[in-house]
Amino acid sequence: MKLRPPARGVVLCGFMATGKSAVARALARRLGLQAVETDALIEQRAGKTIAEIFQQDGEQAFRDLESAAVAQVATQSGVVVSTGGGALLRPENVALLRQMGPLVCIQASAETIYQRARRNSRRPLLHGDDPQAAIARLLKEREPVYTQADFAVTSTEQGSPAGVAEEIVALLSGDSRTAGLTGQPLLVPVEVPGAAYPIHVGFGLLGRLGELVPPPRAGARAALISSVTLGGSYGEAARAGLWAAGWEPTLHLVPDGEQAKQMAVAERLCGELVEAGHDRGSWVFAVGGGVIGDLSGFVAALYMRGVSFVTVPTTLLAQVDASVGGKVAVNLPQGKNLVGAFHQPRAVVMDLETLATLPARQWAEGWAEIIKHAALADAEMFAYLEEHLAEIDLTQHAALQYVVGRNCQIKAEVVAQDPEERGWRAVLNFGHTVGHALERAATEWSLGHGEAVGLGMVAETRWAEAHGHTPAGTADRLAALLEKAGLPAAPTGLDLAAARPALKTDKKLLAGRLALPVLSGIGSVRLLPDVGLAEMEEALQWTAKR
Amino acid sequence: MKLRPPARGVVLCGFMATGKSAVARALARRLGLQAVETDALIEQRAGKTIAEIFQQDGEQAFRDLESAAVAQVATQSGVVVSTGGGALLRPENVALLRQMGPLVCIQASAETIYQRARRNSRRPLLHGDDPQAAIARLLKEREPVYTQADFAVTSTEQGSPAGVAEEIVALLSGDSRTAGLTGQPLLVPVEVPGAAYPIHVGFGLLGRLGELVPPPRAGARAALISSVTLGGSYGEAARAGLWAAGWEPTLHLVPDGEQAKQMAVAERLCGELVEAGHDRGSWVFAVGGGVIGDLSGFVAALYMRGVSFVTVPTTLLAQVDASVGGKVAVNLPQGKNLVGAFHQPRAVVMDLETLATLPARQWAEGWAEIIKHAALADAEMFAYLEEHLAEIDLTQHAALQYVVGRNCQIKAEVVAQDPEERGWRAVLNFGHTVGHALERAATEWSLGHGEAVGLGMVAETRWAEAHGHTPAGTADRLAALLEKAGLPAAPTGLDLAAARPALKTDKKLLAGRLALPVLSGIGSVRLLPDVGLAEMEEALQWTAKR
Repeated sequence: MKLRPPARGVVLCGFMATGKSAVARALARRLGLQAVETDALIEQRAGKTIAEIFQQDGEQAFRDLESAAVAQVATQSGVVVSTGGGALLRPENVALLRQMGPLVCIQASAETIYQRARRNSRRPLLHGDDPQAAIARLLKEREPVYTQADFAVTSTEQGSPAGVAEEIVALLSGDSRTAGLTGQPLLVPVEVPGAAYPIHVGFGLLGRLGELVPPPRAGARAALISSVTLGGSYGEAARAGLWAAGWEPTLHLVPDGEQAKQMAVAERLCGELVEAGHDRGSWVFAVGGGVIGDLSGFVAALYMRGVSFVTVPTTLLAQVDASVGGKVAVNLPQGKNLVGAFHQPRAVVMDLETLATLPARQWAEGWAEIIKHAALADAEMFAYLEEHLAEIDLTQHAALQYVVGRNCQIKAEVVAQDPEERGWRAVLNFGHTVGHALERAATEWSLGHGEAVGLGMVAETRWAEAHGHTPAGTADRLAALLEKAGLPAAPTGLDLAAARPALKTDKKLLAGRLALPVLSGIGSVRLLPDVGLAEMEEALQWTAKR
Repeated sequence: MKLRPPARGVVLCGFMATGKSAVARALARRLGLQAVETDALIEQRAGKTIAEIFQQDGEQAFRDLESAAVAQVATQSGVVVSTGGGALLRPENVALLRQMGPLVCIQASAETIYQRARRNSRRPLLHGDDPQAAIARLLKEREPVYTQADFAVTSTEQGSPAGVAEEIVALLSGDSRTAGLTGQPLLVPVEVPGAAYPIHVGFGLLGRLGELVPPPRAGARAALISSVTLGGSYGEAARAGLWAAGWEPTLHLVPDGEQAKQMAVAERLCGELVEAGHDRGSWVFAVGGGVIGDLSGFVAALYMRGVSFVTVPTTLLAQVDASVGGKVAVNLPQGKNLVGAFHQPRAVVMDLETLATLPARQWAEGWAEIIKHAALADAEMFAYLEEHLAEIDLTQHAALQYVVGRNCQIKAEVVAQDPEERGWRAVLNFGHTVGHALERAATEWSLGHGEAVGLGMVAETRWAEAHGHTPAGTADRLAALLEKAGLPAAPTGLDLAAARPALKTDKKLLAGRLALPVLSGIGSVRLLPDVGLAEMEEALQWTAKR
């Protein structure tokens, strides 16, 4: 199921006298949110009670006031809204409330409602000969209105508001949109041929690592691989999380940086695993950035011909790019990632708190991939980023979980269609042909990979617009969003002449003509067949244009 | 389809006057065999013609003489036998001839038979009022007799004996039993989950290597890995075989011996492949023994995350053991084969001529595995080895092809049932628990792996006999066959006390109790569950007993 942007609140609806207000207050307390009551807003604005509005101005006037209150409350964040019994009668109210978050209907029997309402004579609909029969009739009439809710709970005479609130929290745990409100990590299931594994995206997950993987089987050992720098902090936190679940991981540290990704280091690690007594049933946990993930995955793929593997990526780029796809590798003196394997993890655990120590430029690297995936496959996510990216930081749990989780989901969908890189997976190379040429020519100005890919996406899209493959304006939207993420959308002082030779030695172009990913629009991509060097040289020129 | 022991000859049968004798002579010329005619043997023995025997002694006497001739000819090898028209009337004749090789029926129409028979008045059955009607009636009557043949060809008035012989050769190419007679390599299809590939077993295949793999696709490159010693001879022959098919393989040599099986050598090879311009579409060919196969397969599994791989094993042990199963690996300083992968080859090509340079002790290593596989799964092959092993050498093409091919087939059947070594594949460890203990304790007396496994099989089987798991006498048959192959069936001067500690550190026993393969009889194995150290120490003691 597609992950949707996070809910800003929870909306309670239901018949009068079902206890919505009390439940809203209990639920707000439980989740650390603010309780808001549309009826209270109406009374405040009108300067009189609901009953007085009904008596003096009629129901129509009340409904207008209610719509205005719904429109006001629907823009808020971090709230539990309790609505009046008839608030869902108008479809525009339903639409506005839905945008805020899930609608939860509080149900009660006619008898319960009657008993509760009797205690409060202000209820305007309760006057007549046989009020209980009137309630039952109206309940029946309103049934289709309340079935519009996403969830329903039942309130009884005996139940406490706190109890109902707890039931709602349990229901919401099944809705990924409210993970940010309830403090739950997001669970993104990945299914690629021959493997299915969960990605957990949340805060404070290092210490809960042991809960997020299967419990150790009798005699099963764990090896935790991390870097010298991260080992003492994140490595130890993860180790504690594993200890808590009964694992007794041995710790293996490698030097920081790209130079750890080599055969000799992998061999040394395998030797350490032997000496620590690890066998085919052992699990390897990798705690660190892309280098640690690639290297540890390579070790896990080869040790005793393959052992179970869990990645705990601690950089945004490793989370949004390397954690899906099963590609593991080390470098050769002759080039990067030339020796490797496909080895799917058993689980990926992303503790977004580890991003607290991430330098700004590395954040931007991750954003480049996130923006790429949104542009390829999810117009809603792209629009969400256009609206919210500037304000997303580590305090925005719900937003960050959504962005990282949905990103992984998009990549997993592409990988599932082409696990061994035979065709469609090439769409993930969007921006990379021009991007790689810029990056390879750029050693002196040290352009980051994400920065280069950002420039590449914009240049390739401007070229595609010029040739009618992509609707006009798409590149401008891309460029604007990249800038919001702190990425250069246009180059300053780039010598494009230096990038042209790099394009000529591009592996994909050397092998013949390539299938170039071009956007059919934001959120939709296709492969343009049979693109050659001349076209890509022309696309490269678009790097300098606006 | 199960490979059967090789045919010793071809038997032609069919109605009189279908041209059997002439076809037999043509076929014998074509295949370099000797033509034998049962009717000629009968006339020789009786000292009179067939017609005279019929006239003077009656058909019954002729049939008795014919049975004697069949019994005589059925023991011969390298012959094409043509039988009389009624030779298949007696079931005992059919049974005897079947043991020699395939029965080929030469068919002809009644008209053709009549025209041919007319020219030869000696035919005893051709006297009467309407001989053509008599022929047609007898043809109809004999039909069920001739349908016992394995193949049928039709002889016409116009067809030449050489033409019919050529048709028979084409038919025989579909029968693995006659591969030795027709000079064809054997083709053993291997199907393991996720992979299917052919094993070609024959003579002179290095120079035909290019014919035995798919033709190179546009731009596809080949890398040929061999050892310093073999590179100049077998490596160059294989390279020529690839050139002939349009490949242009680069040659990569590694040092001889076990020390080449290490990460640093694999890394160096990968670097050489990069520098030679190899990409994901390149094919790796490994020409050499087990070390070359394991190392090259490891390189092929990792290079660019996996490229196509063909093994050309040049030792008997590599052919009968390492070529099936997809296990590739290198060693660590801490132990053998600790780092590796499962990477199935696209084809395996075994040129048995490469065994010409194999030292006697390495032959014996291979025989130990062959005898193990026969004991596990094929009583017919075991009996064949009991009868023929002593005489099998490089001149015995058919026998050697059968033994190597059937051995690979047995291993492939076990692997197919358990490709990732979760359970049943443990039967391949028959003899290995005691064998490994002997081998590990034996550095000083340098007991070969095959020799140790041979001793282990006998000791484990004697133990199993003593406990009623295996019928009495089985270990004696094993021991006798091992001795025929030049393997020690009983130890001389072995200090078993030195092997006991090695048993204690056996990986499988350390992890708990093991499932021990025991023979239910020759050709049939089961896993005896829950065997512990005490039992294996007792089995070890059987090494010294008879």
